[in-house]
This record gives sequence, structure tokens and C-alpha cells, in this order.
Amino acid sequence: MTSAMEHSPGRACSVSRVPRFDLEADVIVVGFGAAGACAAIEAAATGARVLLFEVAAGSGGTSALSGGEIYLGGSGGTPIQRAAGFSDATHDFLTYLVMAGGPNADAAKARLYAEESLAHFHWLRSQGVQYKNSYIAEKIVEPVTDDCLIWSGSEAAWPFAQEAKPCPRGHCPQFVGMGGGKYLMEVLAQRVSDLNVDVRFNSRALALIADDSGRVCGLVVRIDGESRYARAHNGVVLCTGGFIMNREMVRRHAPLMLRSRQPIGTVDDGSGIRMGMSVGGAAINMSEGFVTIPWYPPGSLVKGIFINECGQRFVNEDCYHGRVSQYILRQPGGDRVWLLVDQASYAPPDFQQLARIEIGAAAETWEEVERELQLPQGSLINTVELYNRYARQGEDPLFHKAREWLQPLEKPPFVALDCRVDHCFYSSFTLGGLDTLPTGEVLNEDRGVIPGLYAAGRTACGLPRWGPGYSSGMSLADATFFGRQAGLRAARAIANGASRNRPPEFE
Amino acid sequence: MTSAMEHSPGRACSVSRVPRFDLEADVIVVGFGAAGACAAIEAAATGARVLLFEVAAGSGGTSALSGGEIYLGGSGGTPIQRAAGFSDATHDFLTYLVMAGGPNADAAKARLYAEESLAHFHWLRSQGVQYKNSYIAEKIVEPVTDDCLIWSGSEAAWPFAQEAKPCPRGHCPQFVGMGGGKYLMEVLAQRVSDLNVDVRFNSRALALIADDSGRVCGLVVRIDGESRYARAHNGVVLCTGGFIMNREMVRRHAPLMLRSRQPIGTVDDGSGIRMGMSVGGAAINMSEGFVTIPWYPPGSLVKGIFINECGQRFVNEDCYHGRVSQYILRQPGGDRVWLLVDQASYAPPDFQQLARIEIGAAAETWEEVERELQLPQGSLINTVELYNRYARQGEDPLFHKAREWLQPLEKPPFVALDCRVDHCFYSSFTLGGLDTLPTGEVLNEDRGVIPGLYAAGRTACGLPRWGPGYSSGMSLADATFFGRQAGLRAARAIANGASRNRPPEFE
Repeated sequence: MTSAMEHSPGRACSVSRVPRFDLEADVIVVGFGAAGACAAIEAAATGARVLLFEVAAGSGGTSALSGGEIYLGGSGGTPIQRAAGFSDATHDFLTYLVMAGGPNADAAKARLYAEESLAHFHWLRSQGVQYKNSYIAEKIVEPVTDDCLIWSGSEAAWPFAQEAKPCPRGHCPQFVGMGGGKYLMEVLAQRVSDLNVDVRFNSRALALIADDSGRVCGLVVRIDGESRYARAHNGVVLCTGGFIMNREMVRRHAPLMLRSRQPIGTVDDGSGIRMGMSVGGAAINMSEGFVTIPWYPPGSLVKGIFINECGQRFVNEDCYHGRVSQYILRQPGGDRVWLLVDQASYAPPDFQQLARIEIGAAAETWEEVERELQLPQGSLINTVELYNRYARQGEDPLFHKAREWLQPLEKPPFVALDCRVDHCFYSSFTLGGLDTLPTGEVLNEDRGVIPGLYAAGRTACGLPRWGPGYSSGMSLADATFFGRQAGLRAARAIANGASRNRPPEFE
Repeated sequence: MTSAMEHSPGRACSVSRVPRFDLEADVIVVGFGAAGACAAIEAAATGARVLLFEVAAGSGGTSALSGGEIYLGGSGGTPIQRAAGFSDATHDFLTYLVMAGGPNADAAKARLYAEESLAHFHWLRSQGVQYKNSYIAEKIVEPVTDDCLIWSGSEAAWPFAQEAKPCPRGHCPQFVGMGGGKYLMEVLAQRVSDLNVDVRFNSRALALIADDSGRVCGLVVRIDGESRYARAHNGVVLCTGGFIMNREMVRRHAPLMLRSRQPIGTVDDGSGIRMGMSVGGAAINMSEGFVTIPWYPPGSLVKGIFINECGQRFVNEDCYHGRVSQYILRQPGGDRVWLLVDQASYAPPDFQQLARIEIGAAAETWEEVERELQLPQGSLINTVELYNRYARQGEDPLFHKAREWLQPLEKPPFVALDCRVDHCFYSSFTLGGLDTLPTGEVLNEDRGVIPGLYAAGRTACGLPRWGPGYSSGMSLADATFFGRQAGLRAARAIANGASRNRPPEFE
């Protein structure tokens, strides 16, 4: 008899060593965040018997910590985009998604999502998620009202706006306050319950079970301190989130992320990724993550300029806060970074308390600010002087900030807002994960499918996979949509009568 | 009967599916570069029966393309360091190695190598590798003479010099010309032959064989178009190099490296890494690589300054060419980069023809150079003016270039050397690979040992694992030294009589 201590996610268990099967189902889903909920809903809706294991005592996962925002568009726009006057062409949406995916974008997933996003919006509504037909034009992070549509990425900023017609695509559920993710998960959890999914809480997935052909055919789970063996006739869907809470994994794979003091996660111990790797699954983009400091709103701050400890600018400040933050993280010295503003552009940041953005220097001249910050003589001055000279002409030849945000910083007093990475609130989660097909099937390093294994949400490397391309709502868009695909594909193995996908002993 | 087409490195073969074993040995080594040769030598020297498979028709691998340089030091210095007047303390050597390993340095490997490097030098000599007792003080890339000791990293540059006493550590074998790696491999191959290692050329490793406990117990190899099954009683040592020639893998894991037009590799298709992953091995630092343009010598060019397309400096130019190149690769815009020099510092780069470094602009004033390069007005000027002003005082407050290289760029004519990444010769190889213990044992993502599996050289993530920290000679140092450890550990399973490490059927 094998004890619980012998199993660990990094090491698969051979079916020949399973003492007995305690549980069985057609589809086993691991993790009850957005991806797992959507996988379970779709699989169960086809008639498959679904077992859902969740290590916590309740549903929600890290998705419930979010704003519940989902990145949607294309096909001429959602009803809410259209009501706000935006017609979002699929082509523009796709172009943006591919640019946002960075140098290793997944064109197949981007295409499928760009084409199916409108239908996904209707699916979300059909599950019971409510959206108000409203739009906020200002540059914000997330509405505190129950409004829906916001600009949640770098759509209007260089270089994205040069390639794809800008459109707001962040859709927030109708919920007052910052808890939209909790609301979203409550709606999805209700659906899971309505569909009679067999949900087991307080159940920790310990290891995948594989047969000698390499097919995944079950899961070892610890329940009440005992190892339980669960057989999956069709497949196992891993939806355990990313690995931001596993600081050893972060150190090993995404050391830059360690500098963020605020990991966004619940469990997120990388167990799903580790289980996938244990059967040969390829983990990709493991060094990538989302990092951000909410330095705006108000939008007037976007008229300021960021400088590093060499007094150099490094980014167009009108792009998404998470993109700006990626550039901040990569500056020489890596810590001392300021946002320079003048009287005309300064206003206290809305999230000043949370973000711990303090005034690093304030003076009547930029020379004094430079001295107060102890920057090399002329470094800040040269940067401000060059910026102002071009801004007066409505140009930013260095970083291409859009004209509407260009305003010379010339009205004293002058202020340097301190945005040090090691001091301020930079939140983060990981974007690397298992390489999957759009169907959720997990791939090995030869891009061959591992039979019986699926992954979605941050356990997979999905649409959002490159820090500088992240936009709010992308992770939930990916988790919900590709969670659905994985659930459907895993269940379809029955619907198709595809008996060759079943373990030999069932033929 | 299984056909050759059914096997691929990304998918392990279960021992239960092996039709027969055609070959057997105590230790199987895959790949006949420096790591594989050293693993085979050490394993065979203990009396183990060793089978070495090499896909090419001869020995050498990518190691034979190199200069044969090995990074050595510590313990007060090698005889050659000491003769040149350097006493290299183990502490300084270790500090440098850890800094060079970057945010995810392997302190255990660094410590072992810092302590054993002097003994490794003697071992290399005892194998027949000859070194001349000579030292070149100039800042060069690699000697064209048969001289030995050179400065081959960033030892004397900020921030390394602040933490570890600088010392030259690149040891080149006594060989006239650039072919030192070929000479090194000929010596090692002779030793492999003398020790009666069973070498099979033209043999492609297709897949690992594992039993149902997860232990690696053999290898499927394609020989003469047929799948052959080789049993390894003790273990398989993967030494197949990195993955720079597998452009799909590079795109997936290290997209920045794709911009280098000159991959340094022979096979280097990642097959060893893929085989390791197929049995749950964790691949780490996969986005890291070595990239360089040989922009010096002559050393006078180091007195110039690099600027990006914003006219900004970005690095202390006195560090190793490979470190400078990493910074070049990361500049905004990512392509247009120049080295600014004046009459006093200019000399044609030694490798001008090879590197395709051309003059991008030349003029009597920096204003004209700025215009010729079509840079924003004032951008280059501000940078040069600030640099010159501080250089006159022997300071570089922005990037900390050492005083000996600080000389104001004020003697016309002024020149901008064009170092565009997409145009010039940037060579590259990968630094990510399987996570291993200093013994060469391959780890899964929980850092548990995968029984029977070892890796060394660029198939493993070794001492050199971070592009900006690379120094010439580090990869061969790692491949030879940790290749030896892997061979010893794999063989020792016999010497120890550690029967629990043998497959059950042999007990």
C-alpha cells in the first residue's frame, strides 16, 4: 500500500502501482477557479460524469480575487461595445491579441478566440453573468461602480495602435465595488452545482496516474490524510492556477517576478504545471509574468514621464500600467524609478495609499529635483528639456506617446513621484505554463499530444503569455474560454464514441 | 515490433514495450562533445562498461567549433595564473561565478567548481591537453597565437570588480590559430579510445526507456535505419548539447535569441533536453542564451560609448563583449545601435569583416553625426556631452565604466560604428537546460532525482546560465567538469555496490 508521502506532483504514478481505484469519472477536473469551473460546466453539459477536486474548502480560487473583468471583442463588437459606438473588427482584435502575445504568441489560440469571443460573451451571459450596458471613457484600472466597458490595455498606445484599430475590450460584470471576480465565480459555481458535478473540496491532487503507453488515466488525491486513487476514463483537466505562490519555482523560472512584493494568488503552487511536466508536458514562457503598480488614474499623470536612475526615459507612458511596470522592472539598477510631473499634470494617484507612491522630490526647478534625487548632473535636465521641446510640437520621437498625452512639463512646482519596485506595491502573477493546443490538450516538447491530459487557465501557457503585452481581462478571458474548450474536448471522447481514446481494459 | 517512426525524444518508451534489448552497458552516454567525452572517460576509468552514442560520423560536437578555452581559477591560482602574477582566491572565484550565474545561480555547482577547478586543470593536463605558460594582458576575444591565459569575462568591470578581486581565468590550449576546440576534442577522443569505450557513431538517440517506477533504464537508438534497444544498468548520461539549431524550440523558449543570425551549433537540436523532459525532468532558464558580436579588439574601442536609437547609453562598455551584446539585444527598437568613437579611440575592429561592423556615420561634429543617424535632435548630443564632462573627471556615474577606459570623445572626426543586430554577426548558443545536481543527476520540478538519468554540458543548466553573466570558457569548463561528475556518479552505482539503484530484475 502506498502512503500519501510517496506521491508528489513532479513524479507520475504508474497505473501498475495503483493499489485500487477509489473513485472514477469520465472527466476529472483539478481546481475550482474560473478555468476549472468552465471545464466542468462544459464537460458535464455534454452528459459526462465529472469529478472536480479542489484543495481549498470552497470554490473561487485566484479568479475570485480579481475584478472579474474579461477581455472580449471582435465580430463587429459585443452589444456593449456597439452601444458605446465601437465596431470591433475581428481582424483588429486578432492583430492586438497576437501583438500582446509577444515573440512567442500562439496564433492558433488568438485566432480561435478572436473569432469566438462574441459567442463566448453570450455564453457567459447564458450562465447567468450580468453586464450593464455602460462604458467608461477615462483611463482607469478597474471600475468601482457597476459599469462594464473600459479601456483595459495598450490598445490606443504605440505600437499597438499603429497596427490595430483601438477599441476598449475590458468587460466588467455588473457588480458594485472591486469584487467582480467573486461575483463571477459565484455564478459559475452555481452552474457547476446545477449540472451535478461531483465536487470534492479539501482534496489535494498529489500526482497524475499514467499507463505504460504514456496515457494519463487518473489522479492520486489526498483526502482526509489518505491517498485516494481516481480513475479518469477520458481525461484529466489541470486548472490549478499558476505558480506565483511557490517562491522556489518563481526563483527558478521567473526570478524577475520575485521583486514584486505582492503575489496575486491563493494556492497557485504550480502543482498543475509540475504534474503536467511529470508526464513529459512542456512548460513554456516560464520566465514571463504579469507585474503592475496602479500608478494611474487619474489620467493626467499619464502626461508625466518616467525616468530611471540614469535620468533616462524608457517607455511611452500612455500604455497599460502593466506594460509600463514591465519596463520599470527592467531598468538598470532596477529599483530607483520616478514619475516626473509638473503642476499642470500632477494630482494624487487614486491608489496612492495602496500603491505606496510617495513624493520623492518637489522643487521650483528641475535642477533642484535632479539634485534632490542625487542624479548625475544634467541627466534629468537633458531628458526633460528634450521631452518638452518635442512635446511643444506634439511629438515624442523617442517613445511615441500619443499626442493627447503630450504636454511640456514646465509649470512649477515640479514633482518626482517615487515608484521604487522594492518599496511600492507591485502585484504579480505568472504567465508561463504547459504548452497546449487550443483544445486544451497538453503537448510534449516535440509538440505531440499527451493522451488524456488537458490544461487551462494559468496552468497552461495561454493567450496572455508575455508580460509587456498583458491587458486586464486577458487571463480570465483565457481561463474561461479555454477552460470550456478543454472540458468539451475531454468529454467529447465519449460523445464521439472514440473508444481508442479509452484505456485498453475498457474496450 | 515497434518501428523507428514511433519513437521521439519527447516521449519516453516504457520498458514493458521494449521488444528486446540489442545492446547493454553499465553507463550509456549520449553525445560525443566535451561533456560526453569526459563522462565516458571517467565512467570507463572506474571500470564501468560504457556505450557512447553519437549521431554524427565523428567526435567533437559543438565543442570542436570553439576556441577550446576553459575558465579556471581559485585555490590561489593555476600555475599559469601564478606565473603571470595572479593569486586567484577561491572566494573571489566563487563570488564571480555566483554573480555570473545571475538571479538563479546554482551556488552548489559554483562552490564545487571554485574548489575543484585547480584539480580539474591538472586532470585536463593528465589527459594530454597542453597549455603554454603564457599570458596576454590585452582585451581580446581569443588568441590567434598558442598563448594561454587571457581576460575572458567581465572580471575587471562593474559590478563584478566591486565584489570579487579581478583575475584573468580564460585558459586556452597550446594551439596556434582559432581551432583550439578541435585540438581539445582530439585529445579527449584519444582518451575515450584508450579506455575502450564502445563508441557508436551515426547513432541517433530516439527516446529514453523507463520502467514503471520512473527509473531510466535504457535508450532507443536508431542505427542503420533500425530502432535498437540499449539497456543501461546504471544510468544514461545525456550530453547532446543545447537547442540553438532547433529554431522551433528557440522560438518557443528563447525568442530573443532568434535575432542572432549565427547560431553556434552542430546538432544541438535539443534532443537531450527533450528526452529529459519526457521522463519529468525540469528544464530551467530556457529563455537564456549566449549572444555576442566581437566588437573589440582593439581595446581602444572600449573607450567609445554605445548608444541606442534614443541616443541613450545603456551599459559600461568595458565589460565582456557577450555582456554588452545582451544589453544591445534588449534596447528599445531592438536593432539600431552604434558605438561612438572619436579620432583618439577609433581603430578598425579586428573582426570588422567577420562581424560586419561598418561605419554608420562620420563627421567633424557630433551634431552632424546625430543628424546623419537621424536621431532626435539633442539626444546623442546630450549623451556625449554628459559622458565627456564626467569622463574628464575620471567618472562614469551612469554606468560605472572603469577609469582606465574613460576618455572624453572630443577629437574630430567623430565616428558611429553600426552594430545593428539584424545586420551584423551576432553568434549565439543556448544556456537553458535540464536542472541537475552537481553530480549530474537530473531533477524533476519538485527537485527530486530521476533515478538513472544524468545530464551535462549544454543539455543541463550548468554554471553558465544567464546571458549577461557569460564569460568565454565557462561553457567548456562546465561541460568538462560536470561531464566528469556525471560519468563518475553513473559509474559509482556499481563501485558502491548500490544494488538498490539497479533495476529489480538484476537483484
